[in-house]
Amino acid sequence: MHSASILGCSGYTGLETLDRLLSHPELAVVALGSDSQAGNGAWALDVRLTPTNGSLPPVVTNAEAAAAGADVTFWCLGHEESAALAPPAEGVVVDLSGAHRLHDPALYAQWYGFDHPGGLDGWEYALPELHAAEGRLIANPGCYATAALLALAPLADAIEPDGVVVDGKSGVSGAGRSLKPSSHAGFVLENVSAYKVGAHQHEPEIEQLLGFPVALATHLLPIRRGLLVTCYAQATEPDLRARLEEAYAGTVVRVLPEGATPELARVQHTDCAELALFADQATGRAIVVCAIDNLGKGAAGQAVQNANRALGLDETLGLRLAGVLV
Amino acid sequence: MHSASILGCSGYTGLETLDRLLSHPELAVVALGSDSQAGNGAWALDVRLTPTNGSLPPVVTNAEAAAAGADVTFWCLGHEESAALAPPAEGVVVDLSGAHRLHDPALYAQWYGFDHPGGLDGWEYALPELHAAEGRLIANPGCYATAALLALAPLADAIEPDGVVVDGKSGVSGAGRSLKPSSHAGFVLENVSAYKVGAHQHEPEIEQLLGFPVALATHLLPIRRGLLVTCYAQATEPDLRARLEEAYAGTVVRVLPEGATPELARVQHTDCAELALFADQATGRAIVVCAIDNLGKGAAGQAVQNANRALGLDETLGLRLAGVLV
Amino acid sequence: MHSASILGCSGYTGLETLDRLLSHPELAVVALGSDSQAGNGAWALDVRLTPTNGSLPPVVTNAEAAAAGADVTFWCLGHEESAALAPPAEGVVVDLSGAHRLHDPALYAQWYGFDHPGGLDGWEYALPELHAAEGRLIANPGCYATAALLALAPLADAIEPDGVVVDGKSGVSGAGRSLKPSSHAGFVLENVSAYKVGAHQHEPEIEQLLGFPVALATHLLPIRRGLLVTCYAQATEPDLRARLEEAYAGTVVRVLPEGATPELARVQHTDCAELALFADQATGRAIVVCAIDNLGKGAAGQAVQNANRALGLDETLGLRLAGVLV
Amino acid sequence: MHSASILGCSGYTGLETLDRLLSHPELAVVALGSDSQAGNGAWALDVRLTPTNGSLPPVVTNAEAAAAGADVTFWCLGHEESAALAPPAEGVVVDLSGAHRLHDPALYAQWYGFDHPGGLDGWEYALPELHAAEGRLIANPGCYATAALLALAPLADAIEPDGVVVDGKSGVSGAGRSLKPSSHAGFVLENVSAYKVGAHQHEPEIEQLLGFPVALATHLLPIRRGLLVTCYAQATEPDLRARLEEAYAGTVVRVLPEGATPELARVQHTDCAELALFADQATGRAIVVCAIDNLGKGAAGQAVQNANRALGLDETLGLRLAGVLV
Repeated sequence: MHSASILGCSGYTGLETLDRLLSHPELAVVALGSDSQAGNGAWALDVRLTPTNGSLPPVVTNAEAAAAGADVTFWCLGHEESAALAPPAEGVVVDLSGAHRLHDPALYAQWYGFDHPGGLDGWEYALPELHAAEGRLIANPGCYATAALLALAPLADAIEPDGVVVDGKSGVSGAGRSLKPSSHAGFVLENVSAYKVGAHQHEPEIEQLLGFPVALATHLLPIRRGLLVTCYAQATEPDLRARLEEAYAGTVVRVLPEGATPELARVQHTDCAELALFADQATGRAIVVCAIDNLGKGAAGQAVQNANRALGLDETLGLRLAGVLV
Repeated sequence: MHSASILGCSGYTGLETLDRLLSHPELAVVALGSDSQAGNGAWALDVRLTPTNGSLPPVVTNAEAAAAGADVTFWCLGHEESAALAPPAEGVVVDLSGAHRLHDPALYAQWYGFDHPGGLDGWEYALPELHAAEGRLIANPGCYATAALLALAPLADAIEPDGVVVDGKSGVSGAGRSLKPSSHAGFVLENVSAYKVGAHQHEPEIEQLLGFPVALATHLLPIRRGLLVTCYAQATEPDLRARLEEAYAGTVVRVLPEGATPELARVQHTDCAELALFADQATGRAIVVCAIDNLGKGAAGQAVQNANRALGLDETLGLRLAGVLV
Repeated sequence: MHSASILGCSGYTGLETLDRLLSHPELAVVALGSDSQAGNGAWALDVRLTPTNGSLPPVVTNAEAAAAGADVTFWCLGHEESAALAPPAEGVVVDLSGAHRLHDPALYAQWYGFDHPGGLDGWEYALPELHAAEGRLIANPGCYATAALLALAPLADAIEPDGVVVDGKSGVSGAGRSLKPSSHAGFVLENVSAYKVGAHQHEPEIEQLLGFPVALATHLLPIRRGLLVTCYAQATEPDLRARLEEAYAGTVVRVLPEGATPELARVQHTDCAELALFADQATGRAIVVCAIDNLGKGAAGQAVQNANRALGLDETLGLRLAGVLV
Repeated sequence: MHSASILGCSGYTGLETLDRLLSHPELAVVALGSDSQAGNGAWALDVRLTPTNGSLPPVVTNAEAAAAGADVTFWCLGHEESAALAPPAEGVVVDLSGAHRLHDPALYAQWYGFDHPGGLDGWEYALPELHAAEGRLIANPGCYATAALLALAPLADAIEPDGVVVDGKSGVSGAGRSLKPSSHAGFVLENVSAYKVGAHQHEPEIEQLLGFPVALATHLLPIRRGLLVTCYAQATEPDLRARLEEAYAGTVVRVLPEGATPELARVQHTDCAELALFADQATGRAIVVCAIDNLGKGAAGQAVQNANRALGLDETLGLRLAGVLV
């Protein structure tokens, strides 16, 4: 049994990480950090915790949770807050924010809007199916980046790097739990809006792993959770499908058979991904669609997956993978 | 006062056309055609028609409505049904289906799945802001095509024709009122699905007007109505914004100021369009977003606009253009 | 032509009132008040106002708008803010908040959570189909109260006053535009929650007009706008349907024929109401369902209707009543 | 290990039952019946089954699945189809339809619209927390009935039996997977509609267990799944809360602490229920709100719970109970 601590456990990614740990057979929660909920019992995070309250510690401050000496600590904090945090001397850290994803600190001013304090050495960007971490400081990928990279990375040598387009669509939980006009249900319901068009902070992490930039526009949909990207590229090799199938055999990523299309609902509340490949009839361009749950494979699920690997555990422990919920 | 007839008045586009005619000061409905509702009073189409029932004729068969000798007849029928119909010897016809949009009948087998019987001569594809009809047989554009063409046509000489991508997102009314698994609310709600990826029948009509093909993937969203396309292209000239503003000055198309983003909710239930232009920070690619209501500017609103022009009336009579509904 | 001023024009009810005035042939907007938007052009309220910006005045403070001397002033402010406001010496005032609905100021502490400063004399609670105002100070009814009273008031003498139940369901715009956790789309989407159960501030205004109290529980639905109440009562007379039909003949309230059920979508974006009457097969209890748009007949539409009457105009000028939108 | 068979496995309740069995440690699926999918592999039911296809049998006809001789057979069929089916000579049967819920076959003509062929002897209506089955033929309760009975049954001796009202709100999956106009997403989205007002077939099963009738109106909401009932009753005893807490201690039913309100999202995708008790401030009437997932505790979850009990297994095996999904 290993010990786990969560910083920022009252936000969406924090709660969702806790969800996975509640059913994890090898990780025990030893500290729950939240500056706004410190001092309360775990039930204050969610009334569903009442029955299991006995086995969860009360909420403490993030500083206290960071100092808990856990085998793995999940940082579920804002980008700037995470960037300012010093990692512990020992133990695995999985940072779910974007603070340690980019190798070049100078990029943060442009894409994240703050000056990065540095300290990026030693952090690894880990998307297990594509690039696993070897050390103990893990930058967990962004949700759009996860979907775009799952769709494109295995094809990077088989497509024209110029002119690749990623069109992203996400549910509202991708924007976090803080209150803002664009998350007000009176704005979101029966609406679709483009946001951060050509300016989303996941663009540079996609470029960093692919080796070339892509155009990215993101859209907010009236759904609670889940994310779908549609990627367009000019193929230079004929074997795209084989490359995808080979890359993801035996993983949590499902490459759909020809004729089937990804459907968000099938991956919602799970830590799986669905991929499908098409050819545009008018232009011949390859189109790859990827669906994930932004809070699952796009955040907490992948964080626990990364933690499992770093701790030498079975990669899928605690993940939500099974089922055929309607 | 001119007379108007609607064939297929019990479907979504038929009802929506009737909606516009109800408040049209120069068009009087003289025939309502629907093979499934023939023999019923107009109230059978919608209980809201009860109070005005006296002024609307009872529903007749489509054949009877086609023979009504109206000054303008709106064909709100299926593609194949419209293709088989002979236009009247006189009077304006606006066909809201795709049956008369493509000049080359051979394309129908590939994109629409049926062999076109021919008779396409004399029909004009009319999108008033880009290409107005001069005759009396009018092919009303498709919803995705309308949005894509509004976004791209004024830029056709200022972008690289190769590699243009159109990513479409639509509400469920775009798929019509007939019952199918993909329109079941248990499938649509809290879901996003790609469909007809690279194979949508609006691709050839976009190519026909632009002069070059685009890649198109379309997505079904959990909204009742409305449509948004995100178009990606490599600019070859610097003045894209000026071209858009010049093309749409004084029209029902609103080019948003820099910094504003199109929002579906603002055009829902209207016959307007919203456009915005962006530059992708990673690739420099131009991104043009266009939002319309698929049943308004994407169907019935544009049909009435086309009819108004063909009859020599003020183009906007009967259209839903005003207001700031929340 | 009469002049109109709106206080609080950047909130939901303010914007929606402006929407009605934009198409009102006898009311001209002379002042737009909003403390947060003062100094901006009207387009700052909504980008759709750009084309008509020339005809709308710039936004001023609420105090300035209140002092504009308009023939009618719409107060679209918070309850407590309205309660503290002194009405002008002349001109019609329509208060869309709850501040002047209850005759007994002592009730405000219990139901609204603040001590009312008094000054309720001279104000009339006006629901035109049931109780029209005769003076110039008009308290516009609450949205749930409007629907419940339309359903129950004509039946008050024909039902057992004890045991009447009103179950309310509303879209999120009923809770206003301010940011709160319960309006976050991550809470609202794919969710239904009860709120203010047995404690909603519209209960006392229903009792005040009916003459007896009702039990009321209210529920938040994942819809943008619209409201439906289901009312249960024991009939003591056999002619409930006739009473409803007689009460609403020739009004904006539609009593549905037997067998039809109210549907929110048919009244959304309108200032109409739909009513239907049923008998429970197990208990014989009468069930009356009423659907309105909470921002239309439940707020701004009724406010303009009340203003029209107070100014001696045709009651329906500027209202959204027509159409058969899908 | 026990064997299980599912009839009607391609419908919503059939798929959802399969979902629970996939993670059930003591039940192995030996037969999957579906007349429309017979002959296909299990993956034809849902593409998510591909990876586990090896462990699931291919789909057979319902007759073949009924004859599989399984230890437990789940009947996930239409009411009339189930009523006509003869139970096997051995083995547990859980009928998820309404065909065997009412003791009096004469009631079926009125409430279900068909003449019941009889054969109701030996069947038991089993809602485990209130009334557990002792035999092997189990009628699984209806979704609205489950929620209403969980709210009211422990209070039956402490409320006035006359005048009890149950107002039900359900997501669209409650209406099943078959195609009908009222399940079309173009009808459901951004809409709320009342249906079967005072005439819902769950009324008599509520009366049968409570001992007195209630008034029931049901409403269709734009959500995928989940159900909430709001029950109104006049208390005759002061200890309603204690009765609820005592009835549900140690069960899957969560009685919320004072001040908390049931929220559908917290029980979605689970087999739990949430209950809360309120007092109406205007009338003193007790209001009990209950939220369940219509496909979980309202159908498949409860079916598996009933099967577990009948087979002598731990009641919660295979159920979805844990987690704090956002």
